[in-house]
Amino acid sequence: MSATSTGSPEQLQFLTELLERGLLVASGTDGLFGRGALFEDIRLAFNRVVSRAAAPESAEALHFPPLVPRRQIERTGYLGSFPHLAGTVFAFSGTESQALEQQARAARHEDWSEFQAMTDLMLAPAACYPVYPAVAARGPLPADGVLIDVGSGYVFRHEPSPDPTRLQSFHLRELVRIGDPAAVRAWRDAWRDRGVELLRSLGLEPSPTTANDPFFGRAGRMLAESQREHALKFELHVPMVGPEPLAVASFNYHQDHFGSAFDLRLADGGVAHSACLGFGEERVVLALLRTHGFDVALWPAPVRRVLWPVS
Amino acid sequence: MSATSTGSPEQLQFLTELLERGLLVASGTDGLFGRGALFEDIRLAFNRVVSRAAAPESAEALHFPPLVPRRQIERTGYLGSFPHLAGTVFAFSGTESQALEQQARAARHEDWSEFQAMTDLMLAPAACYPVYPAVAARGPLPADGVLIDVGSGYVFRHEPSPDPTRLQSFHLRELVRIGDPAAVRAWRDAWRDRGVELLRSLGLEPSPTTANDPFFGRAGRMLAESQREHALKFELHVPMVGPEPLAVASFNYHQDHFGSAFDLRLADGGVAHSACLGFGEERVVLALLRTHGFDVALWPAPVRRVLWPVS
Repeated sequence: MSATSTGSPEQLQFLTELLERGLLVASGTDGLFGRGALFEDIRLAFNRVVSRAAAPESAEALHFPPLVPRRQIERTGYLGSFPHLAGTVFAFSGTESQALEQQARAARHEDWSEFQAMTDLMLAPAACYPVYPAVAARGPLPADGVLIDVGSGYVFRHEPSPDPTRLQSFHLRELVRIGDPAAVRAWRDAWRDRGVELLRSLGLEPSPTTANDPFFGRAGRMLAESQREHALKFELHVPMVGPEPLAVASFNYHQDHFGSAFDLRLADGGVAHSACLGFGEERVVLALLRTHGFDVALWPAPVRRVLWPVS
Repeated sequence: MSATSTGSPEQLQFLTELLERGLLVASGTDGLFGRGALFEDIRLAFNRVVSRAAAPESAEALHFPPLVPRRQIERTGYLGSFPHLAGTVFAFSGTESQALEQQARAARHEDWSEFQAMTDLMLAPAACYPVYPAVAARGPLPADGVLIDVGSGYVFRHEPSPDPTRLQSFHLRELVRIGDPAAVRAWRDAWRDRGVELLRSLGLEPSPTTANDPFFGRAGRMLAESQREHALKFELHVPMVGPEPLAVASFNYHQDHFGSAFDLRLADGGVAHSACLGFGEERVVLALLRTHGFDVALWPAPVRRVLWPVS
């Protein structure tokens, strides 16, 4: 994802208008917003557009909470690549007097972190993470692999920013394909093209681009270069409020990364490959509002018909 | 909520069947499950039943992520009453060498908690928490107060258990009423009766009961007694798998608790009172499966018509 210069007058004006019209609700914390009825209506309509595009493939539906077992994240190496984005869940298990001291400090907004200990839960960094161990637990894959629709899941990225296009907690609309390398890669490439069509049908102008994940540190630069060189990640960027278009969807070929981490086996015993795609739902809604304006009744009729085909 | 004795043969059999039929998906961690297509279908159908029951009141829709600003929780005194249930979000902000050491320990499943520091986010303990500061930020309430429909939000309770009726991350379907004491209490009482009707229409047999929250420690016993004495909390219990019926809904009168914490003002300047109701969606689905069986096609026709009125 491209760097976003936050706080330009244009961006502040966009955020102010989103808040004044009740599309978003400020929480007092960067990157965390409530959503009003209209914002949610558009988000769910977009969700259904993706479901309709996915319908011919008859994916298996699996839904997961916004938390994942810490052991699973530890197995994937996520903390090596994205330590700066991960969120861990801590909780209290002390005595009554410690609870009193914790509450007294909290009431004064002082540091009470010493009373909190790590639990075995983390925040889900992507909606697809729980899929790999769940599918691995079934044993070897069927001959043509599997396709899982995880729907729209809450994910967490620890990157606090006042920019409403860069949230800490947001919805990823994800699908996951697991199988042999050729099938997985073909699926990923087909969906990249389908994603372009889908966003165009909503009046957006996506530019597909080879991309890299925001790997951490100096070693991360090499990982990013390798990811680009092998065209493992594509993103669709659309005009947003800043000077640069912003990624609203990504299409990722993991090679055997998750297959090896979770011992996902093909029918013939080989290590399975995987790919996933994700649409950032809040970003798509913001791009639609930015492109077509705040009055949905005035959006182009073809766009309205795609989002709300019945009404 | 009544204590649950986990692990009885009957309960294990129920969980085994839920997993084998793909209604739930094990995560490897207590109190955390994925949900298959049928489970999710029933959950969303129940969600719409609540929405239809609420429709005549024309509530304002507001939706929030599963995280809330830590400062808000600190202001409510939640950590005094429920320190054992709260979840805090920690994250990394160290150097590259610390990131390497963190990842090395994580890969060995050793303790890497020292590299994590408290962020300004916590897990939402109830879907209604973000409502109070959001409404307070608008200024004094209109004369008849407000009614907010927060839909179905993910909440967190740190109470790991193998019992699928006691989850750490689950959906609460909540509505919130804020206004003068008489209006708020009348709304809460009306919804308690409506909740009984609603669950009866689904073939469940709810028994309304005066209840208390699971306050922490010795001081908590006094809070619990006072809550019961003033009938601030009602729950609807329905037969589940254990020997005791289990709470699937609660109807809570907060008096001026949130009004004072967030300076919520009535039109005349007085402190606003509030009430909320919440249906535990996963528990409702489990109660339906337990009561009517695993084959939805064989559920009583009137129950199917309430859940799926169109089909």
